[in-house]
Amino acid sequence: MAEYILPIQRLIDEFRRLPGVGGKTATRYAFAALNLTDEEAERFADAILGVKRDVNRCPVCHGLSSADICDICANEDRDRSIICVVENAKDIITMEKIRGFFGVYHVLGGALAPLDNITPDVLNIDSLKARVAEGGVREVIIATNPTPSGDTTASYLARILEGSGVTVTRLAYGIPVGGDIEYADEVTLYRAMEGRRYFN
Amino acid sequence: MAEYILPIQRLIDEFRRLPGVGGKTATRYAFAALNLTDEEAERFADAILGVKRDVNRCPVCHGLSSADICDICANEDRDRSIICVVENAKDIITMEKIRGFFGVYHVLGGALAPLDNITPDVLNIDSLKARVAEGGVREVIIATNPTPSGDTTASYLARILEGSGVTVTRLAYGIPVGGDIEYADEVTLYRAMEGRRYFN
Repeated sequence: MAEYILPIQRLIDEFRRLPGVGGKTATRYAFAALNLTDEEAERFADAILGVKRDVNRCPVCHGLSSADICDICANEDRDRSIICVVENAKDIITMEKIRGFFGVYHVLGGALAPLDNITPDVLNIDSLKARVAEGGVREVIIATNPTPSGDTTASYLARILEGSGVTVTRLAYGIPVGGDIEYADEVTLYRAMEGRRYFN
Repeated sequence: MAEYILPIQRLIDEFRRLPGVGGKTATRYAFAALNLTDEEAERFADAILGVKRDVNRCPVCHGLSSADICDICANEDRDRSIICVVENAKDIITMEKIRGFFGVYHVLGGALAPLDNITPDVLNIDSLKARVAEGGVREVIIATNPTPSGDTTASYLARILEGSGVTVTRLAYGIPVGGDIEYADEVTLYRAMEGRRYFN
């Protein structure tokens, strides 16, 4: 036989669908789940259903929200004149960690990748244009990932927003703080050189 | 804020309870779960409940079973006179992979570790003694892990079974097949030397 009994195999297969999880890890997880109490298993199962049931997309920024409009868009203290455009809802949490950005966000839902059928109409670009067209927006900061598709998306957005009267900026490339120049790759170093600033 | 909304945080906390899963991995998993379809999420949640609901312990060997008696104990072709004793139910699957053992198993449910309150009465040792006492058993192969607690458990079992008339054996220690002597640790090499066999 050398096979797991059906209920265990089923759970292993489900865990394998998680990113980066192979057979051995999925098996470890499944056996860990087997050792949960009934109550813990119920809570785990309900948490999975919960993210589907209780998480909505904010109609303004497309970020994640447990209410209708997300906390950031609903917050009167945030500066609506600066929109930071990110690829994924998760990136909002990352940006919020710097605790130094008080504008609002716009989630694209990915980056352009025509070969994977991710074309502009699939991303939340029309709604970004609509937000800018509504007026009151001063600056759009493009914070897509520093990858080829993130770069393509950034250029595309910059072109789309041309002539709309808003300033379009992009996050600075450069050597990471605390990093060592010795270990920086050439492209990053080149960009850091290009983006060099005066001591002021 | 820099925090996830409640339903997501709940799921992250659940994933963190899995072995070897930290905050970043749990977050990746939670966002992956968010991208499941409703149907997939239901199936995942049900698989978790399923291992609690549909997995039983075999009353004979304490292995996992979806029926009452497990497939191996129920199999008339298995040799009931040889019992292979393993620490965990999962080890049965590993042993079955060699496709060269046709006896039956006995799952201890762990290894002796008095400091962690794992004493003989916590393990399935009485039921092993009972199986041996019932008669018809010729050999007990102890396949506990090659760790201090596995070794202690093996010695304990060997002593317990002394005088019961069965042969008690232990898996051979040695250099792993395909391994390189250069990388073998001293203890393994010493055991391999000790257990050396004649070319026959």
